[in-house]
Amino acid sequence: MAILVVGSVAFDSLETPSGRRERVLGGAATHFSLAASFFTKVRVVGVVGDDFLPEHEAVLTSKGVDTTGIERAPGKCFHWTGSYVKDMNAAETLATDLNVFAAFEPKIPESYLDSEYLFLANIDPVLQARVRSQMPHVKMVAADTMNYWIAGHRENLLKVLRELDVLLINDGEAKMLSGESNGLRAAEGVRALGPKSVIVKHGEYGATAYGSGRPFRAPAMPLHEVVDPTGAGDSFAGGFYGYIASQPELTPEVFRRAMFYGSVLGSLAVEKFGTERLQATTRKEIDERVENLRDISHL
Amino acid sequence: MAILVVGSVAFDSLETPSGRRERVLGGAATHFSLAASFFTKVRVVGVVGDDFLPEHEAVLTSKGVDTTGIERAPGKCFHWTGSYVKDMNAAETLATDLNVFAAFEPKIPESYLDSEYLFLANIDPVLQARVRSQMPHVKMVAADTMNYWIAGHRENLLKVLRELDVLLINDGEAKMLSGESNGLRAAEGVRALGPKSVIVKHGEYGATAYGSGRPFRAPAMPLHEVVDPTGAGDSFAGGFYGYIASQPELTPEVFRRAMFYGSVLGSLAVEKFGTERLQATTRKEIDERVENLRDISHL
Repeated sequence: MAILVVGSVAFDSLETPSGRRERVLGGAATHFSLAASFFTKVRVVGVVGDDFLPEHEAVLTSKGVDTTGIERAPGKCFHWTGSYVKDMNAAETLATDLNVFAAFEPKIPESYLDSEYLFLANIDPVLQARVRSQMPHVKMVAADTMNYWIAGHRENLLKVLRELDVLLINDGEAKMLSGESNGLRAAEGVRALGPKSVIVKHGEYGATAYGSGRPFRAPAMPLHEVVDPTGAGDSFAGGFYGYIASQPELTPEVFRRAMFYGSVLGSLAVEKFGTERLQATTRKEIDERVENLRDISHL
Repeated sequence: MAILVVGSVAFDSLETPSGRRERVLGGAATHFSLAASFFTKVRVVGVVGDDFLPEHEAVLTSKGVDTTGIERAPGKCFHWTGSYVKDMNAAETLATDLNVFAAFEPKIPESYLDSEYLFLANIDPVLQARVRSQMPHVKMVAADTMNYWIAGHRENLLKVLRELDVLLINDGEAKMLSGESNGLRAAEGVRALGPKSVIVKHGEYGATAYGSGRPFRAPAMPLHEVVDPTGAGDSFAGGFYGYIASQPELTPEVFRRAMFYGSVLGSLAVEKFGTERLQATTRKEIDERVENLRDISHL
């Protein structure tokens, strides 16, 4: 079943303990789409500038990602400059050049309207709500957000949360959104705002899903080197949601396995800069890593 | 099979977001012994002062812990005053009154000499080495340490590490000891110093064991309230090591299950102040929580 994702398609200039890269392909929708493309059909809604070349588009289309909904606007792509040199777990933003993204007004192609799964990547919650309202018949809606929207656009974000099946956020965001310092209470506080399930990501330690039943914890793969953490959360979301969309029914077992797929895609994504690692992986390698993750965590 | 543990038997005065307690029974050997007592015979070597009353000793003896090796010295027990109000994950030491512990010289009762398992709780590595040398025929040696010894007594600590089967430390200590900032490399660096296995504790996220084969990750139980983190690591060690000592052979399956028992004892310990929660639990409750932990982490 097809997933429609709305979010940024961007360039990132990055500095990590492993090195520097200038203007590599990035953006939440890009990472999400690549990760989900191993499981199901993905359709992107976003906006790019003149600097988005055929070679960039090919990164997506070569994986079968539908780019019909990527609008071309005069100007340049969204460009983020960040550093992880001081702290691998918290990006330091050095520059945010919104460029064509500043006036982004998502337009959903008619060929996308039968998508059954919707992913609202981390963008202005006003835009998230607008896209949501244009897709009234989707089977499932998941979303991401970040501290910027939680702190400064809370009311708009709360409207989005009320209609979500799944919200994916990290520990700090869950605590900020709920006002709770305890991890479990924070997740319950966020769930009380609307999402049927909340997936809280713990970086190198994995992620926990909180729903109506008991929680579920998926570990992360211990890695010798995290080259570039950018896009780890979006890749997790893509693996998680892509797997779900590929299954006939969302059972508790499917949800658990989707958490493992999310964790695996997140761990792959950070092994190289930008989208490099996800471009090079295969479904076979992904499945093998899921088995490895099971081996290192099951009695 | 019996475990001999050498370490502190102390009083703690504590301040956490959940409240304050004055002079509750604590100390690494106390927490370890209580946790391990649910699985096997435990024998303590330590020193206490005049303020260690029959009611305190009964906390241990009522669980079958052998206190023959707890020496009585004139003066007062080791007394630690700490606060977790600013950060639940890092104790702030307000006062350390070593008292009788300052001149602690471990003496092993003859009745302890046939112990097959040795646990060197967090004390001066010179004393850890001395106890180790007096127990040449033990089957297995595990130990804990802390930043204080890593930073200021490194050479003495390195001598202890060379002879260990298992070292239990936390993330920060592993990074400090190895000089590596990546978690997996840090664990490998610590293993290169001697211990056959290194268990790195991640607080609320669980723990990872690194040995000659692949790693193993045990999750922690999500808790609504961490009342008092003091002794969580010692309780983890007690559950882990107690379970191993209770089994006829140390297979990889036993090691994995021991990690789950460690996690469960750690999670129980923090639910009340001091030793209160471990005093009240039962083997049945512990086993049920291991099953819960399996349920929330297995596909």
